[in-house]
Amino acid sequence: MSLLVVGSVAFDAIETPFGKTDKIVGGAATYISLSASYFTNDINLVAVVGDDFPQEDIQEFKKRGVNTDGLQIKAGQKSFFWSGKYHNDMNSRDTLVTELNVLGDFDPVIPGTYQGADFLMLGNLSPKVQQTVIERLHRKPKLIVMDTMNFWMEIAMADLCKTISMVDVLTINDEEARQLSGEYSLVKAAAKIRSMGPHTLIIKKGEHGALLFGDKEIFFAPALPLEDVFDPTGAGDTFAGGFIGYLAKTGDISFENMKRAIMYGSAMASYCVEKFGTQRLKELSQSAIFDRLQQFRTLTTYDIESKQD
Amino acid sequence: MSLLVVGSVAFDAIETPFGKTDKIVGGAATYISLSASYFTNDINLVAVVGDDFPQEDIQEFKKRGVNTDGLQIKAGQKSFFWSGKYHNDMNSRDTLVTELNVLGDFDPVIPGTYQGADFLMLGNLSPKVQQTVIERLHRKPKLIVMDTMNFWMEIAMADLCKTISMVDVLTINDEEARQLSGEYSLVKAAAKIRSMGPHTLIIKKGEHGALLFGDKEIFFAPALPLEDVFDPTGAGDTFAGGFIGYLAKTGDISFENMKRAIMYGSAMASYCVEKFGTQRLKELSQSAIFDRLQQFRTLTTYDIESKQD
Repeated sequence: MSLLVVGSVAFDAIETPFGKTDKIVGGAATYISLSASYFTNDINLVAVVGDDFPQEDIQEFKKRGVNTDGLQIKAGQKSFFWSGKYHNDMNSRDTLVTELNVLGDFDPVIPGTYQGADFLMLGNLSPKVQQTVIERLHRKPKLIVMDTMNFWMEIAMADLCKTISMVDVLTINDEEARQLSGEYSLVKAAAKIRSMGPHTLIIKKGEHGALLFGDKEIFFAPALPLEDVFDPTGAGDTFAGGFIGYLAKTGDISFENMKRAIMYGSAMASYCVEKFGTQRLKELSQSAIFDRLQQFRTLTTYDIESKQD
Repeated sequence: MSLLVVGSVAFDAIETPFGKTDKIVGGAATYISLSASYFTNDINLVAVVGDDFPQEDIQEFKKRGVNTDGLQIKAGQKSFFWSGKYHNDMNSRDTLVTELNVLGDFDPVIPGTYQGADFLMLGNLSPKVQQTVIERLHRKPKLIVMDTMNFWMEIAMADLCKTISMVDVLTINDEEARQLSGEYSLVKAAAKIRSMGPHTLIIKKGEHGALLFGDKEIFFAPALPLEDVFDPTGAGDTFAGGFIGYLAKTGDISFENMKRAIMYGSAMASYCVEKFGTQRLKELSQSAIFDRLQQFRTLTTYDIESKQD
C-alpha cells in the first residue's frame, strides 16, 4: 500500500568518539524513506531542500522506489543543516549548529499523484507543518504515524496537542513521554497521551528498547546489545521507517501486526547505528534483515511451562 | 537442592514519594530468602543480627523453610540499619543513615549441618566476608552466585576481584558493570567481567530489565511496565532470590534454565516493588507468581514468520 513520508531531508555533520564526518546527507525523512524502502517501493516523499542538495542523492531515493515529485528544490537557498557531537556514553549529545535554511518556511505541498495515500508518516517537524499535511490530504489515510520531540513541547505545546489529536500513532522517547504527560510512570504517561488522541503510542527507549501501548495491551521490544554503537544519528527515524514500511507492505494495522512492525523497526535501527549516517542503511539485504530478526528472537526467547505445576 | 544464603539481615527506614516507614525488617539475605522460599524450602541462612531483632521475624523465616541455625544473634548489640529516601523518579536515592553495628565485624560461621550446600547465594557484603564463606565450605557448591555493589569497587577493588574470580555467576547493575570493566558497551563489559572468573554475568537494569551473558549467548528479560513503583528497596535481592531459588528447585544450571530462572526472578521483583519493604513478598501465592509470568510472556511475545519470504 502507498506510503507518504513527510519530514526533513538535510545535511548533518556528526562527531562521535569514533570519528567525525563532513556534511553528509541526513534528515528524518531520509532515514524513514531509506528504511521503509526495504519493505515497500510505493513511497512518496514530501520535503524541501536547497539547490546545494546533490542530484545523486535524489537519484538514490528514486532508485529505491521513493518518488521525489514532492521534494521541493529551492533555487538559491540552502538545505537544513544540523551538526552535533555525541558524548562518550553515546546517549547524550550537544547540538553545535542548527541552520533551518529552507525548513524555516516549509510549505508542504502534496502533489496530486500523492493523494489517496494509505499510510502517512510524519517525521519530526513543526507541529503546524505536520497538521497542514494532514489537512491537505483529501482522504484520511488508513494510519497516520507522527514523530515529534521535546523542542516542540517547549515552544509550541498548543499546536503540538492539536496535531497529536489528529493522528493514530505517536512515537516519542521516554523523557518526552514524561514531559508531555507530566507522569513519571510510563504506564500512566501512555494512558494520558492516548487520551489526547492517538490510539497507539510507541515509547522509544534507545538502548533499552521500545514499548508499544495499545488499548489494554502492552508490547515490549528489546534493543539488541551491541559491541559498539558507532553513530546513533537517525536510529529513531530508521526505527519508524521500518515500522511504517512493514505496515504499508502488509496493510494490516492490528496490534499483533504492529508488534511485528516494531521488531522490524528495531532490526533496522540496530543496523543504522553500526556506521556513520545512512551508510549502513544503504547496503542492507533482505537476508541481513532476516538474520537480525532471528538474533532478536533468540535474545528474548525462553521456554517456561505454560501450565501451572 | 539445598540453598545456602549469606547476606545482611537488618532494619531499613524508607521514604518514597508515596510515604515513609519506621524501622522495618530488610537486608539482602532477607529479601533473597523470602523470594527463594517460593521455590524451595531447603534454605540455610547465615547472617548476623543484634538482640534488637524481633523473634517473630526469625519465626517468619522458619515458617517459610528458612533454617536460621546460622543466624548469629549478638547480645547487647544492634542490627545493621540503613535509612534512605527515594527521589521522585524512584531510580535514584539518598542514603540518610548507615549504621553497620553487628555487620562491622561479621564472622560468617557455617554450621556443620549447612555443609554440602548445592547452591550458594552471596548477598551484597564485604568481598572479604564473601570470600571467607567460600573458603569455609568443605565442598564447592554446584553454583555460586554473588551480588555486589559499586561501594566495594571504590574501597576494596583487590578483594572484590579476588572474590569475583571464585564465583560462577555475578549479578551487578549496568553502572557497576561499566565501572568494574571500564567499558561503556555492556557487551564489551560483560566479556571483560566474564574473563575475571564468572562464567555467567547478570546485568540488572532496574526498570529496563536484565541481561544474562553466557558463553556466546545473551538473553534479555524485560521489566514489567508498572503503574506505580511503590518502593524499589530489595528489588535486586528479590530478583536474585527468585533466580537462585528456581535453580535450586530444578537443580539445572544450563543457560536455558538460567533464562527461566531470570524470568522467575523478574516476576518476584515486579511484585516486591508494589508495597513497602518485604510486605508484598510475604503475601504471594504460587498462582500469583504464575499469573505474573504470563504477563511477562505476553509482553514480549510476537509471531514472525521464521522462514524468510
